[in-house]
Amino acid sequence: MLRVAVVGATGYTGEELVKILLRHPGVKITSLSAKIEKEEKFSNIFPWAKKKISLVCKNLNTLEVSKVCDVVFLAVPHKASMAIAPKFLSKKKLVIDLSADYRLESTSLYKKWYNETHKDKANIIKAVYGLPEVYGRKIAKTALIANPGCYPTGAILGCAPLLAKNLVDPKQITIDAKSGVTGAGRNASLALHFCETNEDLKAYKVNQHQHMPEIEQELSKIAKTKVSITFVPHLVPMNRGILSTIYLSAKHKTKTARVIQVYKKFYKDQPFVRILDKDNLPQIKDVVGTNFCNIGIKADGKKIIVITTIDNLQKGAAGQAVQNMNIACGFNETAGLGISPKKA
Amino acid sequence: MLRVAVVGATGYTGEELVKILLRHPGVKITSLSAKIEKEEKFSNIFPWAKKKISLVCKNLNTLEVSKVCDVVFLAVPHKASMAIAPKFLSKKKLVIDLSADYRLESTSLYKKWYNETHKDKANIIKAVYGLPEVYGRKIAKTALIANPGCYPTGAILGCAPLLAKNLVDPKQITIDAKSGVTGAGRNASLALHFCETNEDLKAYKVNQHQHMPEIEQELSKIAKTKVSITFVPHLVPMNRGILSTIYLSAKHKTKTARVIQVYKKFYKDQPFVRILDKDNLPQIKDVVGTNFCNIGIKADGKKIIVITTIDNLQKGAAGQAVQNMNIACGFNETAGLGISPKKA
Amino acid sequence: MLRVAVVGATGYTGEELVKILLRHPGVKITSLSAKIEKEEKFSNIFPWAKKKISLVCKNLNTLEVSKVCDVVFLAVPHKASMAIAPKFLSKKKLVIDLSADYRLESTSLYKKWYNETHKDKANIIKAVYGLPEVYGRKIAKTALIANPGCYPTGAILGCAPLLAKNLVDPKQITIDAKSGVTGAGRNASLALHFCETNEDLKAYKVNQHQHMPEIEQELSKIAKTKVSITFVPHLVPMNRGILSTIYLSAKHKTKTARVIQVYKKFYKDQPFVRILDKDNLPQIKDVVGTNFCNIGIKADGKKIIVITTIDNLQKGAAGQAVQNMNIACGFNETAGLGISPKKA
Amino acid sequence: MLRVAVVGATGYTGEELVKILLRHPGVKITSLSAKIEKEEKFSNIFPWAKKKISLVCKNLNTLEVSKVCDVVFLAVPHKASMAIAPKFLSKKKLVIDLSADYRLESTSLYKKWYNETHKDKANIIKAVYGLPEVYGRKIAKTALIANPGCYPTGAILGCAPLLAKNLVDPKQITIDAKSGVTGAGRNASLALHFCETNEDLKAYKVNQHQHMPEIEQELSKIAKTKVSITFVPHLVPMNRGILSTIYLSAKHKTKTARVIQVYKKFYKDQPFVRILDKDNLPQIKDVVGTNFCNIGIKADGKKIIVITTIDNLQKGAAGQAVQNMNIACGFNETAGLGISPKKA
Repeated sequence: MLRVAVVGATGYTGEELVKILLRHPGVKITSLSAKIEKEEKFSNIFPWAKKKISLVCKNLNTLEVSKVCDVVFLAVPHKASMAIAPKFLSKKKLVIDLSADYRLESTSLYKKWYNETHKDKANIIKAVYGLPEVYGRKIAKTALIANPGCYPTGAILGCAPLLAKNLVDPKQITIDAKSGVTGAGRNASLALHFCETNEDLKAYKVNQHQHMPEIEQELSKIAKTKVSITFVPHLVPMNRGILSTIYLSAKHKTKTARVIQVYKKFYKDQPFVRILDKDNLPQIKDVVGTNFCNIGIKADGKKIIVITTIDNLQKGAAGQAVQNMNIACGFNETAGLGISPKKA
Repeated sequence: MLRVAVVGATGYTGEELVKILLRHPGVKITSLSAKIEKEEKFSNIFPWAKKKISLVCKNLNTLEVSKVCDVVFLAVPHKASMAIAPKFLSKKKLVIDLSADYRLESTSLYKKWYNETHKDKANIIKAVYGLPEVYGRKIAKTALIANPGCYPTGAILGCAPLLAKNLVDPKQITIDAKSGVTGAGRNASLALHFCETNEDLKAYKVNQHQHMPEIEQELSKIAKTKVSITFVPHLVPMNRGILSTIYLSAKHKTKTARVIQVYKKFYKDQPFVRILDKDNLPQIKDVVGTNFCNIGIKADGKKIIVITTIDNLQKGAAGQAVQNMNIACGFNETAGLGISPKKA
Repeated sequence: MLRVAVVGATGYTGEELVKILLRHPGVKITSLSAKIEKEEKFSNIFPWAKKKISLVCKNLNTLEVSKVCDVVFLAVPHKASMAIAPKFLSKKKLVIDLSADYRLESTSLYKKWYNETHKDKANIIKAVYGLPEVYGRKIAKTALIANPGCYPTGAILGCAPLLAKNLVDPKQITIDAKSGVTGAGRNASLALHFCETNEDLKAYKVNQHQHMPEIEQELSKIAKTKVSITFVPHLVPMNRGILSTIYLSAKHKTKTARVIQVYKKFYKDQPFVRILDKDNLPQIKDVVGTNFCNIGIKADGKKIIVITTIDNLQKGAAGQAVQNMNIACGFNETAGLGISPKKA
Repeated sequence: MLRVAVVGATGYTGEELVKILLRHPGVKITSLSAKIEKEEKFSNIFPWAKKKISLVCKNLNTLEVSKVCDVVFLAVPHKASMAIAPKFLSKKKLVIDLSADYRLESTSLYKKWYNETHKDKANIIKAVYGLPEVYGRKIAKTALIANPGCYPTGAILGCAPLLAKNLVDPKQITIDAKSGVTGAGRNASLALHFCETNEDLKAYKVNQHQHMPEIEQELSKIAKTKVSITFVPHLVPMNRGILSTIYLSAKHKTKTARVIQVYKKFYKDQPFVRILDKDNLPQIKDVVGTNFCNIGIKADGKKIIVITTIDNLQKGAAGQAVQNMNIACGFNETAGLGISPKKA
């Protein structure tokens, strides 16, 4: 049994990690921690966990956690990770960081978008961006996995095949993303009050969201040329899910069926990407609670519209982190993630 | 034009008061105040109000407010009202208090349920409980109206006819109430985070809610004997509305049609109470945005089940406060409250 | 008192028309009709209407309705309107048609998008497109008003100033629209079952929605050149509202403040358009229940992002229809629509 | 691998059965059927199932299904089951019936509440009521399991300990139940339209719901005396979950802690019942997606209030059916149901 620790266990991502890891056949959760006023049983904080896990959620003591774990998940805010990760790395632990701290290769971009000087430049270079559908086996060879952001996951998976094949204009990409409210984090806030969010809908951080440089960095590497995007995120009154509607400009006239073939080929070995057939469109409910990314496509002349859906807490965070752990630690890539293909 | 002030204009009740008063043909809002860090236009805080009202929402200065208003609505938390009301009363203003501070006649009950010694005993005696369907013209003769709580409004209107006519056991009343989330107030809180409340349902303060003594006090007066209730409130994932399912024990076997007659007679002159016909049951959506209380009835032998619905912000708070103002200030009782019976 | 009839009173738009007209100071509803199995009181079908309106909702008899009304609102499905409108027009009634039947000037486009040969070409020419912010006084001079579709209203108001001033590329307009579920109509359907829609989000009719030719027709007239758009509508789990995120390409580099000025000038006399200041973004909740269109703007170099919000049943249908009636019948444009600017 | 068939796979309960069975380590789904116009892949109907199950959902052919399965789940409407079950029983299959057809021992009660003469009296006698917490090992010894209704599960588990110990008045039990909308089934219906249900709340079938005789039958057996209840179900705008607030009259004055002890003892060996500690109350979200029943208790003199929560599709239907299969087929009772107690 692989011993795993979750740091930041009281946020939505941390909670989801615990849920997934409890179902994983090859791991044992040995430590739960968070910034917490009163250390108490995790199942007191999250009553669903009663009879499932009896660990106490403690304030973080990296030394003690290091003693009991092989892998540590950092489900903490950005800025916090870069203070914690080096300590676990120095103890030879596999660190899967779900914050933004090791995703951007450029520390000046980090400074610009997160308004903070990066404090652990040494380890940025070692980090591998944990998007298995793009980085594959590289993920198996690192001690520090920078788990992608929720918006970037849906956006990059939606654009990668067309950019990799040089089929679209890299300067004409518009991503209109719609997220459920767990994406905003588990914090008391008037803006997230039920009555302020229910029956409402809004755009926010229009072309100013901190996930933009991450998307552009990764798409540029895939395209082997500088990609720039327009990005508008929206908040939708539902708990989970991100639907990204992506508008691209084809270099040559094309057709839906042809583009679908490009995507099916690009993702043919990927267990968690489902390319929908012509005239089918993805819906959030088909991916909620799963680690899948569903992709629907419509092309018309030079216009290509790609729509992707993910569960922001699963493929957009905790599920992808476990997928990365599976790759890094030699499990089947789908272990604990709800696919049993031999079943039926 | 009657000049009105709203104190506590940034809560859900205060916001609703402004909405209603803007539609009222006989009043002009002259002052908006609240406990507020930065004084700014009300329409900056509530963008729906742009082009509708240009007042700045200020911190309360009772002297200044007194100069510009004839009537003041106190939509502030309990404990706050009893410090403010006396100042306006001394200036001969009509005070309509939406807090709990002047509802309980017994200051020891107040102390027990609100955990605070009452600071304005002198004015409690002058206060009239502002439930027009019960207190009628008395409301016209006071300078201090204690506007009922949201749960009490639905509960009292549901029980009053049977207790007034001595038809049910006053010790066997169970009220199972379900409220929308605006009832919990407009404050940042993890418990009220969209994702914590959406797709959830819970009971709270089981038989311990501070509205219990208010319900029992009023029902006891109506019944002319001590009434005791069992009361369980629940939080439902919707913005507005309270549905109260009330279980009563008839003294003699009865039938639905007979009980409906009792209610129709009791409320025959009340513009805001609608008694549903046999086999019809009230739904929240039929009262949301209105000042109505809908009542459905089912009787079977000695069991009587009464179901009432109100909009907690209207008949349960701001709407009823305006209804009280209408009575007290000589307007038509329905003015500004969306009934134009001659229309069709 | 102007006498008005509502045909199609049992749909969401018809219901909303009744709600608005009941509040209108200058009209009296004299007839309600719909395709209905059993003729019964409108307030039996919609219990919120009890004590407010006592009319029976009947199956349509145009002759009888003509006798009692001056104005008729057709809130019926497309294809149905073109069979009904001529009958009322021949009786010299003002017809406000909320269907799509008289919006498209080209009957071949109608045939293409609605899959039906148009049956009343004679009256198409007489119809005025009922978008007051664009057609203004023309609306006062016609007997047949083609009330705009819900998506077109938000889309056209969002693009009009930039196209009128020739500031953007008319071939590079992407409209990503998100609608609440009332937009799908009030019909029994598995796809609209609460559990199929709640906690879900989807795109539909991608670049194939029947409102596209209407938007392109109107924008082309405003731009005085052929405009073509990319249009993707989405269904959001909320009752009301459309938020349209519009991506445009400026002909020259510009700035947010400059674009806002263009919009403020263009709409300076319009009571129902609110241009938000820099750094403010519109939210659905600020327009729900109102006839306003809120517009937020963000420009960055040659990219301009315009976000508009409307209530699809108000400014997107029934509210706009009443606004049109107000203009056509000599009322104040805002009568019955909830603005009383002198109030505060 | 045990071979299982699901009949009625296109309803919410059937869909949930497939979800659970796909995770079950000891079974293989070999047949999916439903009343269906066009036989097609289950994953076409439910796109979440793509890459998970490739079976075609067919119209039922009992002979063919019998050949490929050991166990059959009937997730069909009442009245349909009693026509299907005998055929599978005659083929020596274990039948787990999720309809109401084999729950009532009295065919005259069946006739009264379901308005239909029972067509398979022979097998009623053989059926065991599939509530494992009450019937335990009996479930292992039958070929026909009558899986309890959703409301009865929450109601019976909430009352059983007090009635078994003769601690409450069996004639004074009021059950106020609140259900999510999946409880109403997966059928097109105006009443279940998103906009008709969202932001609404209502009671229905007040003291007339067909689950009443089932609850009374089972509670009477537990109490060894005739139990009669008052039962009011409500529809709440959420997808899943039933919260039952149960009001009981203790024979002698008691206290919360004492009653909790009774419950903890009664359910001490039950893996899926969680008795909450004093001052804790159950919430729907803690059981959604699980097979647990959470129970909170508050006692005050002779009043006892018991609140139970279940996921209506899990413990209230499909989860409990799998729990029954586990017991009947020799699996661990919790197999496939998300508890792995040794994990942490």
